[in-house]
Amino acid sequence: MMTREDARARDAADPLRPFRARFALPEGVIYLDGNSLGPLPLSAVPALADCVERQWGDRLIRSWNEGWIEAPRRLGGKIARLIGAQAHEVIVADSTSANLFKALVAALNRDPARRTIVSELGNFHTDLHIAEGAIGCVPGASLRAVPREAVLDALGSDTAVLLLTHVHYKTAERFDLGAITQGAHDAGALVLWDFSHSAGALPIDLNSANADLAVGCGYKYLNGGPGAPAWLFVAERWHDTLGNPLSGWMGHAAPFAFEDRYRPASGMDRWLTGTPPILGLAALEAGVDLWLEASLDTAWAKSQALFDTMAAIGDSLGLACVSPRDAGRRGSHISFRHPDAHALCQALIARGVIGDFRAPDILRLGLTPLYIGFEDIVRAGEILADILQSGSYRAPIFSKRHAVT
Amino acid sequence: MMTREDARARDAADPLRPFRARFALPEGVIYLDGNSLGPLPLSAVPALADCVERQWGDRLIRSWNEGWIEAPRRLGGKIARLIGAQAHEVIVADSTSANLFKALVAALNRDPARRTIVSELGNFHTDLHIAEGAIGCVPGASLRAVPREAVLDALGSDTAVLLLTHVHYKTAERFDLGAITQGAHDAGALVLWDFSHSAGALPIDLNSANADLAVGCGYKYLNGGPGAPAWLFVAERWHDTLGNPLSGWMGHAAPFAFEDRYRPASGMDRWLTGTPPILGLAALEAGVDLWLEASLDTAWAKSQALFDTMAAIGDSLGLACVSPRDAGRRGSHISFRHPDAHALCQALIARGVIGDFRAPDILRLGLTPLYIGFEDIVRAGEILADILQSGSYRAPIFSKRHAVT
Repeated sequence: MMTREDARARDAADPLRPFRARFALPEGVIYLDGNSLGPLPLSAVPALADCVERQWGDRLIRSWNEGWIEAPRRLGGKIARLIGAQAHEVIVADSTSANLFKALVAALNRDPARRTIVSELGNFHTDLHIAEGAIGCVPGASLRAVPREAVLDALGSDTAVLLLTHVHYKTAERFDLGAITQGAHDAGALVLWDFSHSAGALPIDLNSANADLAVGCGYKYLNGGPGAPAWLFVAERWHDTLGNPLSGWMGHAAPFAFEDRYRPASGMDRWLTGTPPILGLAALEAGVDLWLEASLDTAWAKSQALFDTMAAIGDSLGLACVSPRDAGRRGSHISFRHPDAHALCQALIARGVIGDFRAPDILRLGLTPLYIGFEDIVRAGEILADILQSGSYRAPIFSKRHAVT
Repeated sequence: MMTREDARARDAADPLRPFRARFALPEGVIYLDGNSLGPLPLSAVPALADCVERQWGDRLIRSWNEGWIEAPRRLGGKIARLIGAQAHEVIVADSTSANLFKALVAALNRDPARRTIVSELGNFHTDLHIAEGAIGCVPGASLRAVPREAVLDALGSDTAVLLLTHVHYKTAERFDLGAITQGAHDAGALVLWDFSHSAGALPIDLNSANADLAVGCGYKYLNGGPGAPAWLFVAERWHDTLGNPLSGWMGHAAPFAFEDRYRPASGMDRWLTGTPPILGLAALEAGVDLWLEASLDTAWAKSQALFDTMAAIGDSLGLACVSPRDAGRRGSHISFRHPDAHALCQALIARGVIGDFRAPDILRLGLTPLYIGFEDIVRAGEILADILQSGSYRAPIFSKRHAVT
């Protein structure tokens, strides 16, 4: 078990330590929920002030020609560097759910003989919900959700696309990006990867994996702010053949020619739909810019050490860790199963340790190396031990359910 | 023709005059483009600072239970008061284009015998483009776009929905909300109204008109900021029968139960898709809150007087006004047709009068009574006269085209 002293020594030697001071981290809080909502990068404050007061307030409509109209592409190009994609293969737009819809409908429309989406039971639910919506938009389409271990076997000659979340939101289990992509390609299917718990969590190389399609959110590991715009990756080889069903004006070849007929833009531009959400893009850009200064390899190595530290604490407390011990099969959070996980989570929050609860019985703790240190983990472990050993989490106050849990 | 002195007297007597000081209006600029991007309400600055620094920075994930999760409904309820709807009939989410898609696909799926969208040639192009996308998502669906005067005659027993923009983005021509809605209902069709140039521009009563569906943007007359989230109205009588094709987790009956199967929420909640864009919602709420202090009747009366002032100037300069003189058939902007409209617009901008150009030959000037006064119009007219009479707009510098024109 790591002592506080050990932890301080690890933190002092941590090459990522300087990044901690670049986030707003409230006094008295150990924030282990950056995989749900990343904290505020301090640079986002002046970036938003400039966006609001100068760009909107002073430059007004002229700002569209002074950076705004380029923002979805510019930011896409930056995120591309974090996920092993080419700059012109990524765009920032809409929500993760909306981008899932676009990509799924496009994949289903590619080949009339392939009209099935295969996915995982227990996938993050918006992925499955959107898949239901997408099959409703393509004649003859269907959704086949199977247990995790059966996803490759479920592929057939009717499969259009395999829809998977790379790192599972509950357990942090990670699919093998290259092997699964290859397996799907062998079956003639595309893969649509949801990278919401992957981008900014570990090094990823979409191009090396020969990936087809991917989406991800901006507000978790990318620290882009609440409800930040999401990103969409479409491999260059699909740029000309796949079409965006949400065919709005910003995806038109000539948005300001005001033509009656839709003509899709070339490249990633066609995946734009409505007017870009400039305030959200400005905040997200601050978060992404921080990542461009850091090394994902270094962050991932530290994530593994943070995991081992927390896993050892969990073991000492007799907690059931449901995340893989093997880092090669894992993302950057750790989850414990406990019958009173909700109350435990609330009791931790009351003591300043913010993690989250995932129904019905998961306590999930995000390990975010840019701003979480070893001493944070050791201190969180001490508080967790105290709560468990004292039974204080059984107090009625901690059983209250919120709208968002 | 109104003199500067007359104009100052009108401004001094204007009951809306105090609102002008509540917007950031740059020195040396006469901003006649609030119908494209409304100016910054000063109250949005502290609202966003609070959202960013306290809610995101300090409260972090806890803010979801402290107002964020309610924001789409709360803000929808406020916008409802500006458009004559019930609070539970409006929600704020996504872009106008995405909301058009949701509503069109829902309307097309209502009755297999009715699978045609009827719309207007020359409608704002994203409406037509999204209609193309929507018909691609419903078997047997088609789009029939006809000249403006033929829209009611184009309705038939196969029409699912009539898609119209209430106030035309170029000419400001306004459809008769009640009569057209009634005409469509008589033909068994629904109407989907695009209110992007209507909400915050003039008094509207969707419920009195027995409207079915409506969308509108947040960044024009509502002053919600660049790329602000859009709103969607679904009449209560359709709440149980129409479904959202963008069936994301925020529209689920129990978003945090993490169920594999989609169960639509009741009421307007089912029209939500992804995670709400909190920064955009915060700015939009500041803009909408300003409107809740003002009277739309007073604003509309002033808009008419501003129009008459500008129209008289245009007449004196021999400009061809393409907006209806009859206020009952008009929105809140005025447009002139001119072969050199683009250069004219650029020359005006160089002199601090910001309007916009709409291809191929329209100079469009927004009349936004909350912050534009009569003296602004008279001064803009003097500058326009000088540019026209001197021919200065013919300088090569003004022919340069921007990405956004």
